[in-house]
Amino acid sequence: NQTVAADPPELDPQLRQQAETLIAAALESELAYNLVESLTTEVGPRLAGSAAEARARDWATAKLTDLGFSHVRVEPFEIEGWERHAESAAITAPFPQALTVTALGNSVPTPAEGLTGTVARFDSLDALLASDDAPEALAGRIVFVDETMTRTQDGSGYGNAVRKRYQAATAGQARGAIAALIRSVGTSHHRFAHTGSMGYGDVGHSIPTAALAAPDADQLTRALQRGDVSVRLKLHTEILGPMPSGNVIAEIPGRTHPEEIVLLGAHLDSWDLAPGAIDDGAGVAIVTAAARLLLEHDLQPRRTVRIVLFGAEEVGLRGGRAYAAAHAATLPQHVAAAESDFGADIIWRLDTNLPPERTYWGEHLYTLLKPLGVGRGTNETTGGPDIGPLVPGGATPFALRQNGWDYFDYHHTPNDTLDKIDPVKLRQNVAAYVAFAWLMANID
Amino acid sequence: NQTVAADPPELDPQLRQQAETLIAAALESELAYNLVESLTTEVGPRLAGSAAEARARDWATAKLTDLGFSHVRVEPFEIEGWERHAESAAITAPFPQALTVTALGNSVPTPAEGLTGTVARFDSLDALLASDDAPEALAGRIVFVDETMTRTQDGSGYGNAVRKRYQAATAGQARGAIAALIRSVGTSHHRFAHTGSMGYGDVGHSIPTAALAAPDADQLTRALQRGDVSVRLKLHTEILGPMPSGNVIAEIPGRTHPEEIVLLGAHLDSWDLAPGAIDDGAGVAIVTAAARLLLEHDLQPRRTVRIVLFGAEEVGLRGGRAYAAAHAATLPQHVAAAESDFGADIIWRLDTNLPPERTYWGEHLYTLLKPLGVGRGTNETTGGPDIGPLVPGGATPFALRQNGWDYFDYHHTPNDTLDKIDPVKLRQNVAAYVAFAWLMANID
Ligand SMILES: [Zn+2]
Ligand SMILES: [Zn+2]
Ligand SMILES: [Zn+2]
Ligand SMILES: [Zn+2]
Repeated sequence: NQTVAADPPELDPQLRQQAETLIAAALESELAYNLVESLTTEVGPRLAGSAAEARARDWATAKLTDLGFSHVRVEPFEIEGWERHAESAAITAPFPQALTVTALGNSVPTPAEGLTGTVARFDSLDALLASDDAPEALAGRIVFVDETMTRTQDGSGYGNAVRKRYQAATAGQARGAIAALIRSVGTSHHRFAHTGSMGYGDVGHSIPTAALAAPDADQLTRALQRGDVSVRLKLHTEILGPMPSGNVIAEIPGRTHPEEIVLLGAHLDSWDLAPGAIDDGAGVAIVTAAARLLLEHDLQPRRTVRIVLFGAEEVGLRGGRAYAAAHAATLPQHVAAAESDFGADIIWRLDTNLPPERTYWGEHLYTLLKPLGVGRGTNETTGGPDIGPLVPGGATPFALRQNGWDYFDYHHTPNDTLDKIDPVKLRQNVAAYVAFAWLMANID
Repeated sequence: NQTVAADPPELDPQLRQQAETLIAAALESELAYNLVESLTTEVGPRLAGSAAEARARDWATAKLTDLGFSHVRVEPFEIEGWERHAESAAITAPFPQALTVTALGNSVPTPAEGLTGTVARFDSLDALLASDDAPEALAGRIVFVDETMTRTQDGSGYGNAVRKRYQAATAGQARGAIAALIRSVGTSHHRFAHTGSMGYGDVGHSIPTAALAAPDADQLTRALQRGDVSVRLKLHTEILGPMPSGNVIAEIPGRTHPEEIVLLGAHLDSWDLAPGAIDDGAGVAIVTAAARLLLEHDLQPRRTVRIVLFGAEEVGLRGGRAYAAAHAATLPQHVAAAESDFGADIIWRLDTNLPPERTYWGEHLYTLLKPLGVGRGTNETTGGPDIGPLVPGGATPFALRQNGWDYFDYHHTPNDTLDKIDPVKLRQNVAAYVAFAWLMANID
């Protein structure tokens, strides 16, 4: 790496003017909203590995072709399938009543008739991990990790919450528990349970695991304040064999440097509980609409602009990993890669991870985005879930960061529906992405 | 009725001071919140006629006794029972996906395997009623009344919405439809279906009827914009025989006019989908806590203050009707009757229905309530759901009207949970009710 040039190149005025024209057009465009409306209505929920995810690939292939992109194709891969059939929970004693619950992705089923145990509550995952770890410490109990999640703009509360989601089962199992319940990873007080992946780590498949809606976690806690509480949990889930998934890819070929790639990513799969409007129909729509604006304005970039709609993100970033493996040789030529996977609220910050000789790319990009309300972030981003796996191989990540204040109110719940998207905010995202795409695809 | 007295009596200063002391105490009291916390936790959902409603009567009897009220008793009556066992709906073609649905109370079941039909959508109940009413006009179809409800402070949007809820089935059946769907009677865009009673009128039990969550009504409408849509509906409901319900009654006996009654009402039952915090655990808590303040302050009223916790309100105001029948002879001595059944937001308006010779009761009451933010309403109230049946027999209704702006976001959904209650707002209600009770029980 070289040191920073004393006088980084000025931004080519024509490039800047083109970007500003594209931004103005994006702020008037209804395409992104129409795309997410179409995907969520005509496909709806699209669980990784399912027939619905396959329909989503067909939908994307047809849309990208109709919109005029080149080299539209599916890069298939396989995943281990998992399905939810039915789920329920109830306090059986002393205050019989139903609880709103959802199985975590990858959870084994309970016996068909369900299982019943008294509840052992912990304030946090750390409290559970610090508790007596004798193999019989929680024998026959249902462990309940009632840890709350912090609401933040930048989503920084999610990491700790996900730790709870992944590890409650293994920590419970090590102590003899028969099932694990967690307070949903989410920030809303509405009565929705939030699903999401969990894992069994080295112990293999072990105890069934589910999330309670926040009001139900509160209710269970209140019941426990009065004494012992028995809960019955019934999860009918199914671990399937290998199932098909795939990434859908489309391009605007580069005019002078087609081998250099500007990647715009989002994920096509969703959880099964909802049509996945904000996670991640919005991202699919934003990056597709942004790239489409180049075609509409007959602007052929110097580098190739590549849309990648990843499959099977929700179940372990499988699309990102498959892409990284399939494109390992060309990752260093991915000069800019960004993904939209944090809802549909406005972009408020730009993070980069540019080498010293290219930090001026970030300067020029920031200048373009500032009028959209985008502030300057760090030069330390590692990308998002699906871009992350590309970075060790040499792709250069960017993060156009969305306001996540409300995101975890809806995330992974049945409530992630189209009405949660504000069309005006969606356009701000398209504007930022088209500016990003056009600048990165042309800058010297 | 006499004409208005030219010089209505001044409010007795001692009475006024006592009322102000009670108001101040109410604004500091945690009793109402503790009561609704207890009811919603320890009983939870309490459907009319169910074992849970019986537990709610036991809960109320024990609480009212513990709190020191006199003549605590249950006045039993019977209702025709109804239960919900399971419910689901899905678009089967062309865009297969689940829909969030709930059976309306009183709905007959579908066949066990469900029923499937193409959807005939109407913008409103009136549009359906105005449509071709030949018995085969909608043969084999599922009628869908997609009428929205208006959000208002005073709840005036509810009447029209309930009309849709009650009549969609009979109007559909008359035209040969095999089932009826309505857009939920509610104002939220969250993905909850709102239950509530419907009726079959003169036609007797006919077609199964359910409500879609608002996002699902939107989704179905978008699908219909693309062509024919088939929906499968599965409702496992059960019409039961006679089931026990009852009103729970408690008193503070009047010192000088025990035969004159100031009635404070609320309903003890809830729908089965939620613990019924705002409908109507809040009301139970408000009127109980208000009356309890008199005992705490050793204030014995001149007239009898009677708490009535009605049973089976949700399934046809059965508790109010049973009370009216059982107490027909003494209804004219119910000099003031008010019920709290509109959530837990603040009281913003006082409506009365006083004869000319007693309009000054309303003036004095209004003077006391004004500092709580309560404005002056009409002298034309007919009371609420459970007080209404008492009025033709001679009871004098009052309405301490709560802000209902958000009420129908939660009403009759699984989301009616304790966290939806603001303890500070609850206290304002207790303050208004205790001032009402004390003044009405003592004024000359
Ligand atoms: Zn996502
Ligand atoms: Zn996700
Ligand atoms: Zn009610
Ligand atoms: Zn109600």
